[in-house]
Amino acid sequence: MNKGGVFIISGPSGSGKDTLLVEYFKKRPETAFSISSITRDMRVGEVEGEKYNFISKEKFEQMIKEDKLLEYNNFVGNYYGTPREPVEKAVECGRDIIIEVDVNGAAQIREKLPEALSIFIMPPSFEELRRRLCGRGTETEEVIEARMASALGEIKRATEYDYIVVNDDISVAVDDIISIISSSKYLLGRQKTIIDEVLKNAKS
Amino acid sequence: MNKGGVFIISGPSGSGKDTLLVEYFKKRPETAFSISSITRDMRVGEVEGEKYNFISKEKFEQMIKEDKLLEYNNFVGNYYGTPREPVEKAVECGRDIIIEVDVNGAAQIREKLPEALSIFIMPPSFEELRRRLCGRGTETEEVIEARMASALGEIKRATEYDYIVVNDDISVAVDDIISIISSSKYLLGRQKTIIDEVLKNAKS
Repeated sequence: MNKGGVFIISGPSGSGKDTLLVEYFKKRPETAFSISSITRDMRVGEVEGEKYNFISKEKFEQMIKEDKLLEYNNFVGNYYGTPREPVEKAVECGRDIIIEVDVNGAAQIREKLPEALSIFIMPPSFEELRRRLCGRGTETEEVIEARMASALGEIKRATEYDYIVVNDDISVAVDDIISIISSSKYLLGRQKTIIDEVLKNAKS
Repeated sequence: MNKGGVFIISGPSGSGKDTLLVEYFKKRPETAFSISSITRDMRVGEVEGEKYNFISKEKFEQMIKEDKLLEYNNFVGNYYGTPREPVEKAVECGRDIIIEVDVNGAAQIREKLPEALSIFIMPPSFEELRRRLCGRGTETEEVIEARMASALGEIKRATEYDYIVVNDDISVAVDDIISIISSSKYLLGRQKTIIDEVLKNAKS
């Protein structure tokens, strides 16, 4: 059986990445999604095991020690990370898996899984990014400027990614991601079995 | 405007590559096809400018001297090659272009155009390859063995390619190629413009 592929997806706030992923999973529910382990408290509306597994700091630090994370960081006292095991399991079972992570996490995962493909979701233009980050117009100028600076900082690192998908029309962008994930099945690294098989039978 | 992509397609006799390309171009007539320059005589049923441009040996040798070929070889006294200009023109005009070429030609093109993506068409199994090469059963065992040896020699070099497409069901294989060619539009190397544009507007 062919192995599954690992797909890192990042995009700044304003790229529309979250809605894009919701739409992607409606069309491709067979793809697995990597659930992050985090140590902060659960917020209203969050469900254990949906997007996050809520675990203790002690357990998280144990995972770090045992190299059980593909990436992690510590943000204002709380840990966030991607557990290695579910990703490896999906790949072994022939399932593609998506890891939604920021540019720093993506860089850490590439070190550990060089065969992972990474996709950066881009807003269609600077103006549209500003429009999206302005939200409902209730935020102060400072808040918007801080969001813009953070988004632009991430966009500068888009060149570290294998693929760039511009999210202008969401249904087009979803199909772009489907096409990237489908076509990667035919990459040499995931097709060596068939070459070996034809040649093996040739020798016997 | 985004540039077009260059796609090298190879596959041994018995891979079904020719039928596959005919079906591909029915579905994607906007893709360009690289017409080879050759110096042998035209055969019955061949049309100038369809698959080949028939030119003189003198003209071909002039093209070699002027580095106007992406690849060429000499087979029993006749030259076969891929002219550089139509490929560069297609790319500049934003058209994808397919170059159908053998494993040796593919290796030469990769040297000159490292950004080209290459796709190797595989027969689904050793047994099916033999069945296809036996043809209508009118060939001698020696002819079939020679074809098999040549096909297996090419398959050994399939590991030089970016993508491997198994041609078991032709309509599936055509869709695989369409998906590879479409998704390559989103590769970083072909999307730098959008990153530069968003960041440029950020500075102004």
